[in-house]
Amino acid sequence: MEENSMQEILKKAEVLIEALPYIQRFNRKIIVVKYGGSAMVDEELKQSVIQDVTLLKLVGFKPIIVHGGGKEISKWVAKAGMEPEFINGLRKTDAPTMEIAEMVLGKVNKSLVQMVEKLGVNAVGISGKDGGLLKVNKKLSNGQDIGYVGEVKEVNPKILYDLLEKDFLPIICPVGLDDNYDTYNINADDAACAIARAVQAEKLAFLTDIEGVYKDPDDKSTLISELKISDAHKLIKDGYIGGGMLPKLNNCIDAIENGVSRVHILDGRIAHCLLLEIFTNRGIGTAILGDAEEKFYHE
Amino acid sequence: MEENSMQEILKKAEVLIEALPYIQRFNRKIIVVKYGGSAMVDEELKQSVIQDVTLLKLVGFKPIIVHGGGKEISKWVAKAGMEPEFINGLRKTDAPTMEIAEMVLGKVNKSLVQMVEKLGVNAVGISGKDGGLLKVNKKLSNGQDIGYVGEVKEVNPKILYDLLEKDFLPIICPVGLDDNYDTYNINADDAACAIARAVQAEKLAFLTDIEGVYKDPDDKSTLISELKISDAHKLIKDGYIGGGMLPKLNNCIDAIENGVSRVHILDGRIAHCLLLEIFTNRGIGTAILGDAEEKFYHE
Amino acid sequence: MEENSMQEILKKAEVLIEALPYIQRFNRKIIVVKYGGSAMVDEELKQSVIQDVTLLKLVGFKPIIVHGGGKEISKWVAKAGMEPEFINGLRKTDAPTMEIAEMVLGKVNKSLVQMVEKLGVNAVGISGKDGGLLKVNKKLSNGQDIGYVGEVKEVNPKILYDLLEKDFLPIICPVGLDDNYDTYNINADDAACAIARAVQAEKLAFLTDIEGVYKDPDDKSTLISELKISDAHKLIKDGYIGGGMLPKLNNCIDAIENGVSRVHILDGRIAHCLLLEIFTNRGIGTAILGDAEEKFYHE
Amino acid sequence: MEENSMQEILKKAEVLIEALPYIQRFNRKIIVVKYGGSAMVDEELKQSVIQDVTLLKLVGFKPIIVHGGGKEISKWVAKAGMEPEFINGLRKTDAPTMEIAEMVLGKVNKSLVQMVEKLGVNAVGISGKDGGLLKVNKKLSNGQDIGYVGEVKEVNPKILYDLLEKDFLPIICPVGLDDNYDTYNINADDAACAIARAVQAEKLAFLTDIEGVYKDPDDKSTLISELKISDAHKLIKDGYIGGGMLPKLNNCIDAIENGVSRVHILDGRIAHCLLLEIFTNRGIGTAILGDAEEKFYHE
Amino acid sequence: MEENSMQEILKKAEVLIEALPYIQRFNRKIIVVKYGGSAMVDEELKQSVIQDVTLLKLVGFKPIIVHGGGKEISKWVAKAGMEPEFINGLRKTDAPTMEIAEMVLGKVNKSLVQMVEKLGVNAVGISGKDGGLLKVNKKLSNGQDIGYVGEVKEVNPKILYDLLEKDFLPIICPVGLDDNYDTYNINADDAACAIARAVQAEKLAFLTDIEGVYKDPDDKSTLISELKISDAHKLIKDGYIGGGMLPKLNNCIDAIENGVSRVHILDGRIAHCLLLEIFTNRGIGTAILGDAEEKFYHE
Amino acid sequence: MEENSMQEILKKAEVLIEALPYIQRFNRKIIVVKYGGSAMVDEELKQSVIQDVTLLKLVGFKPIIVHGGGKEISKWVAKAGMEPEFINGLRKTDAPTMEIAEMVLGKVNKSLVQMVEKLGVNAVGISGKDGGLLKVNKKLSNGQDIGYVGEVKEVNPKILYDLLEKDFLPIICPVGLDDNYDTYNINADDAACAIARAVQAEKLAFLTDIEGVYKDPDDKSTLISELKISDAHKLIKDGYIGGGMLPKLNNCIDAIENGVSRVHILDGRIAHCLLLEIFTNRGIGTAILGDAEEKFYHE
Repeated sequence: MEENSMQEILKKAEVLIEALPYIQRFNRKIIVVKYGGSAMVDEELKQSVIQDVTLLKLVGFKPIIVHGGGKEISKWVAKAGMEPEFINGLRKTDAPTMEIAEMVLGKVNKSLVQMVEKLGVNAVGISGKDGGLLKVNKKLSNGQDIGYVGEVKEVNPKILYDLLEKDFLPIICPVGLDDNYDTYNINADDAACAIARAVQAEKLAFLTDIEGVYKDPDDKSTLISELKISDAHKLIKDGYIGGGMLPKLNNCIDAIENGVSRVHILDGRIAHCLLLEIFTNRGIGTAILGDAEEKFYHE
Repeated sequence: MEENSMQEILKKAEVLIEALPYIQRFNRKIIVVKYGGSAMVDEELKQSVIQDVTLLKLVGFKPIIVHGGGKEISKWVAKAGMEPEFINGLRKTDAPTMEIAEMVLGKVNKSLVQMVEKLGVNAVGISGKDGGLLKVNKKLSNGQDIGYVGEVKEVNPKILYDLLEKDFLPIICPVGLDDNYDTYNINADDAACAIARAVQAEKLAFLTDIEGVYKDPDDKSTLISELKISDAHKLIKDGYIGGGMLPKLNNCIDAIENGVSRVHILDGRIAHCLLLEIFTNRGIGTAILGDAEEKFYHE
Repeated sequence: MEENSMQEILKKAEVLIEALPYIQRFNRKIIVVKYGGSAMVDEELKQSVIQDVTLLKLVGFKPIIVHGGGKEISKWVAKAGMEPEFINGLRKTDAPTMEIAEMVLGKVNKSLVQMVEKLGVNAVGISGKDGGLLKVNKKLSNGQDIGYVGEVKEVNPKILYDLLEKDFLPIICPVGLDDNYDTYNINADDAACAIARAVQAEKLAFLTDIEGVYKDPDDKSTLISELKISDAHKLIKDGYIGGGMLPKLNNCIDAIENGVSRVHILDGRIAHCLLLEIFTNRGIGTAILGDAEEKFYHE
Repeated sequence: MEENSMQEILKKAEVLIEALPYIQRFNRKIIVVKYGGSAMVDEELKQSVIQDVTLLKLVGFKPIIVHGGGKEISKWVAKAGMEPEFINGLRKTDAPTMEIAEMVLGKVNKSLVQMVEKLGVNAVGISGKDGGLLKVNKKLSNGQDIGYVGEVKEVNPKILYDLLEKDFLPIICPVGLDDNYDTYNINADDAACAIARAVQAEKLAFLTDIEGVYKDPDDKSTLISELKISDAHKLIKDGYIGGGMLPKLNNCIDAIENGVSRVHILDGRIAHCLLLEIFTNRGIGTAILGDAEEKFYHE
Repeated sequence: MEENSMQEILKKAEVLIEALPYIQRFNRKIIVVKYGGSAMVDEELKQSVIQDVTLLKLVGFKPIIVHGGGKEISKWVAKAGMEPEFINGLRKTDAPTMEIAEMVLGKVNKSLVQMVEKLGVNAVGISGKDGGLLKVNKKLSNGQDIGYVGEVKEVNPKILYDLLEKDFLPIICPVGLDDNYDTYNINADDAACAIARAVQAEKLAFLTDIEGVYKDPDDKSTLISELKISDAHKLIKDGYIGGGMLPKLNNCIDAIENGVSRVHILDGRIAHCLLLEIFTNRGIGTAILGDAEEKFYHE
Repeated sequence: MEENSMQEILKKAEVLIEALPYIQRFNRKIIVVKYGGSAMVDEELKQSVIQDVTLLKLVGFKPIIVHGGGKEISKWVAKAGMEPEFINGLRKTDAPTMEIAEMVLGKVNKSLVQMVEKLGVNAVGISGKDGGLLKVNKKLSNGQDIGYVGEVKEVNPKILYDLLEKDFLPIICPVGLDDNYDTYNINADDAACAIARAVQAEKLAFLTDIEGVYKDPDDKSTLISELKISDAHKLIKDGYIGGGMLPKLNNCIDAIENGVSRVHILDGRIAHCLLLEIFTNRGIGTAILGDAEEKFYHE
């Protein structure tokens, strides 16, 4: 064997060995991955996310994917010749819209199953209807009815424990039933957060289209790599957090305060961001954690 | 209590007691129900099928539903402004058609889950992609490529056994993957038959839009209530069976010859046909069974 | 199929479907049936009770039968040429009487096993001696020794859980052992009540020779179909309840106050009274329940 | 501690140590004990048998007792004022006789349970009706109907495995059901033999009122301590075996030829004969074993 | 059989029967045996200890052996030409001494495994390193560093439960790891006590070279056969206990106060002392027990 | 994040992803590693082997280590002042030598346990005595007695399956017992081979001090990277294989012919050779495999 190639493969071994403490630390732990944004559009990124989650499964973690429908829903609503209606800036989800949304989410769901199966791991794609996983209440927008938009009222995690026990990778689309057994759409971030709480996940990772949380969104140098709960509350109170980041950060806080050990806001535009976050001593994006939590990486 | 009402409720008790030997006979046995036709269109019939299957589950049977998409697929293909193309009378399933078919089947699948959940039983809706359930080969029509139409090559029933063990009612839509992990549509009758064989079902019941098998389709008095395998072969050979009934009867024969104890062609237009077939000593439709099989009911 | 017969079998289906919510509600719940009175004498009623319990077993309930010896004991005591002796109106159970009582109860016990086995369900007949099920103290009658009459001191339900787990129907005769391991007879109502408490049964049903609890026993129109615990206490306090009903009602109260969800005093002279009570929306006899209990049927 | 008492207790230790290889050899093995004869009459012998079996249970064996009713049945038949009728020297078992026989066997059964429970081990007393344990055919005597006398047609050992798994000591009385679910009496030796075969017992021990098998019954010095199968056949063929010993020896041969490792004919009149046979290197009575069987003790 | 030998074997039976209540009482209970002293030197005593423990295992107890290295360590240290160094009368355990100590303990460990295996029982010899069983802190002697001498900081009993569940007899040598994963020697008495606490043993028995605890060590007539905890504290406080007995008695007290039911100081110089203590109604040595503990034997 | 470091960590992700198919392929498969030679001497190599095996464990493989004592045995034999004696070039293992060998192997065994525990994985170090794992016959050298040198006669893998089930990493030193329960030394290669056969390992890997098998040992360019069984036989027959390689290659052949899927002769002097062999598409050393085996890597 030549000198050069030998050195190269030795470097490979080092990378694997570097992963050892992380594999050990998260062995048999549940990791909920909210999958959405660009990482659902770009085919290469899609492939990298699925590879990452599959690898996590194979090395002994118990990942659960919660995904949204991204831009596909709008595309199909348009295709069906329907006119979108907005209330307070939120799309009104009437029955026909809900029908299309569920169809599109189902299609996305099965396409993810397909990609995981192709990598040799058994996945099962379900919605919040299956096994009574997600029970919802109607969600109002400033007191106004915006249709079949639900907020999670109760999670029945039995089906998730059953699938994990039988060695499947659960892939979930955020659709649930209310007390009348009517179908409701759920915000995927909210669903992921509720599920992570219900199964007391070790980690909850959001794949987003931003680098992480900034103190000043206009100044990229203010990216926060680690954020304690009390500091997160303070950032919000002081008005530093706005736009789409506010509900996301609230979800993070909610998860941490209800038993999830650590939440990550990752930049889904970076290939293998999930793997890098978990397996290297160089964190990606922003980690949110309890005030008393020991620092494990991100040094 | 008045005399009349007392007699009436005593009659009710008799009906329940009459069901006793059937409940006992099929306790913990797997029953695959192919659900399609009118019974998928009429809301009342739909409700009656779901009630029947749910009752079977609750009294100790292990039902599995395999369903088609019925007329919904055509409706949505049209909605999307696509022009259907036919080859040898069969619809060509190109990629966009397959995409819509999968979406519609997914929608139907979840709506059935929803109905079962509403009756208080936990269901899980899957396609043949989940857990690698259905592996297919491309199916040609007289040697011609008709697109993403597959024939079942292999059934991996692990996910079904897992779901049954965990007390779920599996509801399956007939979509599968080929060796390249591409998506294919499967005829629901074929899928039901392959699944019944794979799990060695006690019964396979087809809900159809006919009363059963006739010796002479034009003469309703020639309805056959019980058909031994050898007689079925003879009927086909002698040309009595034609049209849509031929492939269906071939599926029945295939199932019986591969370990399924009994196959039923039921008239799905009769409410609770499934329950009546199983729980009363008056058979509905045509039962196909092995030549050596003892007669149990239908006398 | 003729119109008439078709309508008839559709009615049958409706009866089965009507049972669905009850089957679902009591699935895997323990139901203790105190079997005695006329229902143990009349052959047809006997058959109907055994059919009912067997059906409950088959559709997923976990019934346990506790039976007395009825008039058989007196018959055999007389046959053996023994003179009955009474103290305060209670039969004195000396050693020879106890010996015969145990033999007769054993005979009745195995005859019930036999009937259940004949219906294709596996039963095991035990007494309170087996597996140390029933431990007793000597029971005095107004301070006087009346022989081998015991009151339940302790129930060791392990054998019941074991038999239920292994899918047997336990049939129990009310004989127990005291601390010296001597044999004692136990009142069957008391034994049923103690067992129902020990296994935290969902239901305890007494098959009796009356229609239920009356406010005024002489006025059949005063039958009480549903009795809250506090009302039961009041009825007793106000002196409405007398005779054999008093200890029975006290047993009912005791059971409800110790974790049994609902107790039924059924008219065992009505065929299939057990089935009708459980599977129809028309209650039979008197149901005793906690004050805070939601009404489920009997409307 | 004094010298003498010290030596005495050291002797005790030696006895326990001497038992070690036997305990090890039969650990978790099933031993069927046919209990009858004098050992069922004399109170002290009764106690010694129960102590022996209980000890076997506690040190890890899996004993099963099969008992007869001995002289008790005759006593109670007489008590009931019934006249015994004999056909070919065999008692005719008409329905009333069967009823009394079952009652008496049940009484004996529970008294054995009682004794075992008193020693702190959990026993369950069953008959061949429970769990469908013993299915019988009517047995004729020289072609003549002698009533409810059955021969074992089929053993369903599920209940025995279940009770052993749950750590109970099963005690069985030899009553069974025919295909019409009618009650039949079974010879206890035959029942013990059939059960030992069905559970593939390691040992089957008959407690009898003789010292063992003699070559010449009139010459006590001809007691055979170990008998190979081929020799047993020869003894029978040569006419050495007669009277009650013939069916017993045939049972022994039947057991050995169908998978039971060793059968013992023990003298039940010797206290603790069972323990001595199993735990000491000095055999008691006659051991019947396969021709190829290695000698383990009896040297 | 001759009269004399018959009487002799009947005596044997009595010894076995005498053991019955003790076998029953300790069935499936964990018994930790600290094995050391003369019983590890004399070959015959060694054999008797191993026979005793093996018998305990076979009759259903769950024994665990913790052993020291006795005089073997000194012998091998000398063999290696090393000069022992003492601090405050305690041997300084430098790295080379620790290395030899571990080797010798390992040798002793496997020789015990070997003896148990020879008696037909499966043993597994482990040290406190295996499965992370024993975690230690460095132990100082009057504040002075005496090398690799550890005191137990934490017991992780998983490996013991696993081995017991799989029916092995665990044999443990008292070596553990500190937080840096360095090897430390542990006093065998301390290790046995910590392990007995961790597994909540029913009994902890020390095999010693003395008869038991004396009120006055110089007066053998003052041997205490049963010592309540409060009396043990008093004996220590009043200065009756000195020398090597003090730490041993403190260990006993510690065990009793932390959940071990009874501790025995046995004279390991008596063959089968363990068996005699457990299986006869004549206690050996001193039993230490809680103040509220009922007296079971030693009367 | 800077461009350079970003590229670097992306490379890391690729290495992890590259491992995915191998992790999937060997998931839950048993891999026996014969650990010896230089890799046991050099501290850094030692660390790398333990890291590799621990990583294999963590990512779902089931590794088992079999180790020798290397040069340590000779060192300690010398230390004890003993004179080595050789017969036909083989060391004579008399009783004192065996005693030292066992002590040294025990020390090495526990030091490996220690290293694995330090990496956070639970290991159990056993010898062939524990649980009766290795039974041996005396091995002669050209018919001459060379002392306590054994060849494996029987492997009882129960303890290995138990430890693997309980998630421990078994570490085995090659000492066994003969039928008299005397201690014997076993060649570590032979022990590893026998164990791999007994557990039907997926892989058996020998860590050696050579690069692999050469066609011409003097010409390093003739290294064989993949060797089919038939070619291995031919190489031996044609006299290409000599010295220490001959018994090793015979072991490889023996393993393959008895159910082990693949055997590897690895160069233990390369850090992480085990990891590189398994996780990269560049094989290390020589792989021996069945003739019909599909090529999986080494292209």
